[in-house]
Amino acid sequence: MNEIKIFSPATVANVACGFDVMGFCLDSVGDEMVIRKVEKKGIHITHIEGFDLPYQADENVAGVSALAMYNALDVDFGFEIEIYKNIKPGSGIGSSAASAVGSVFGINELLGRPFNKTQLTEFAIKGEALASKCEHADNLAPAMFGGFTLVKSLDPLEILEIPCPENLYATIIHPQIEIKTSEARAILPKDVALNNAITQWANFGSLIHGLHTSNFGLIQRSLNDVIVEPYRSQLIPYYDEVKKAALHAGALGAGISGSGPSVFTLNEGLETANNVAESIKAIYAKTDIDFDVHVSPINTYGIKILN
Amino acid sequence: MNEIKIFSPATVANVACGFDVMGFCLDSVGDEMVIRKVEKKGIHITHIEGFDLPYQADENVAGVSALAMYNALDVDFGFEIEIYKNIKPGSGIGSSAASAVGSVFGINELLGRPFNKTQLTEFAIKGEALASKCEHADNLAPAMFGGFTLVKSLDPLEILEIPCPENLYATIIHPQIEIKTSEARAILPKDVALNNAITQWANFGSLIHGLHTSNFGLIQRSLNDVIVEPYRSQLIPYYDEVKKAALHAGALGAGISGSGPSVFTLNEGLETANNVAESIKAIYAKTDIDFDVHVSPINTYGIKILN
Repeated sequence: MNEIKIFSPATVANVACGFDVMGFCLDSVGDEMVIRKVEKKGIHITHIEGFDLPYQADENVAGVSALAMYNALDVDFGFEIEIYKNIKPGSGIGSSAASAVGSVFGINELLGRPFNKTQLTEFAIKGEALASKCEHADNLAPAMFGGFTLVKSLDPLEILEIPCPENLYATIIHPQIEIKTSEARAILPKDVALNNAITQWANFGSLIHGLHTSNFGLIQRSLNDVIVEPYRSQLIPYYDEVKKAALHAGALGAGISGSGPSVFTLNEGLETANNVAESIKAIYAKTDIDFDVHVSPINTYGIKILN
Repeated sequence: MNEIKIFSPATVANVACGFDVMGFCLDSVGDEMVIRKVEKKGIHITHIEGFDLPYQADENVAGVSALAMYNALDVDFGFEIEIYKNIKPGSGIGSSAASAVGSVFGINELLGRPFNKTQLTEFAIKGEALASKCEHADNLAPAMFGGFTLVKSLDPLEILEIPCPENLYATIIHPQIEIKTSEARAILPKDVALNNAITQWANFGSLIHGLHTSNFGLIQRSLNDVIVEPYRSQLIPYYDEVKKAALHAGALGAGISGSGPSVFTLNEGLETANNVAESIKAIYAKTDIDFDVHVSPINTYGIKILN
């Protein structure tokens, strides 16, 4: 096999109470990439569709992660990468993570899987860092493994796969405003009240237990963020209205996807997820802000081969 | 049935990364209590053995929780309580919680169980508050339910029972110094670094996942407390030495039990738990500090009827 086509999914990081460590994988939104083994040594990005991104490998997220992996190999051939981007950069649903994961996953498949998924994620962290200016894996892990993931630690990298209840659907709305990750980071305080931190880990522990036991009521009661949402929600116009509408339409919970501006909701059943989509669309439809809405089951397999 | 004898177990609160919300139940240490239905209305403490505690019901932890429950009833009889105390007050392994849980559990049994365990814990919170000057349930919940418990919230009270792996043993050492709960509270900062809080909930979520999956390696890597231990460990002489010796002897993890001064360890297997006991005994044996050591399986049933 000298060529592979893959689907690299969008992801939601943080998941309300799991700031910086939790994420889940979407099924209906993602990029496609073609990776090809070629004689010419090195990593060569030969085609990009969808958005205007750099072709220079060391300036492109997919290229940087591929180079990190390539430099760990000792081979006398190279790889071409074609990127068919559907996830808008800056949308907050793991656009750079999909690119970073895609190239290393594809190359690994062409080589007969010399690396495991955690090792591949280590390479992908280098690509992700190009986009977000810091090393983190909360979007990379769910894109690579699927389902819900908990990044226990970055050094050493340890990723836990948390069980996913059946019949859980995400509804995502992406209001098309720009929030820079650096800006979303800068708005956060360095210190937080101990009482709020306790509330956050009580909720986070409860979310993990709720996912293990498919307890939708507990998942609902756990999806609260008392640490980050009060700050970052200020950067998203109509955030409170969107969240209120989602919960009123039956969402288990709602929060900021990654560093925003997308807002995610989790829902029991497709019908509720669709109802939530309609009700949150109605909020932005009254404004001059363009938006996309995605309804998706939780993707439990993660990145996958298409051909 | 007009009389019941019960065993009310000692407990470990906080469990390193689960400050203020997590706890587990011990099997080999606990109080005994006799609860008796009598004609005379009210709550009457008629016998106390082991330690010098008040007989006046509204000044005694077991009495206060019993009164909270009794006042919610409409009965024309009363209850006598005998307390055979084995858990030293102030040891940090839930002495007051055992008393608070014991009286309400016993009365409930004599009445044919009108209240569920969460409701009983609500009454017990009133008794616990007499001892610790604030309402919390992180010792009460494991004493009442057994195993590992997560107090998701106090208002409304929601207690989650987390699965317990087989072959898990606790070793506890109680250096006989006095630490007041109020002092242990006062030493804590009001604010904590966001980065540390993130580490704490990553560890706590991982501990919940580790308990669900009986993953001892993960439990080991999760039993870290970057928030509270740096402060409270200063109140416990030779804490660092005890922890180091425990880990060297094979403990999965070690930390402060509740607000101290007891130090708990969790261990895979009885043999390791016994080895850990020997190695931490050796630390205090070189000092003039008296100490007790307990080795116990995790008690998965909680408080129980003896006769």
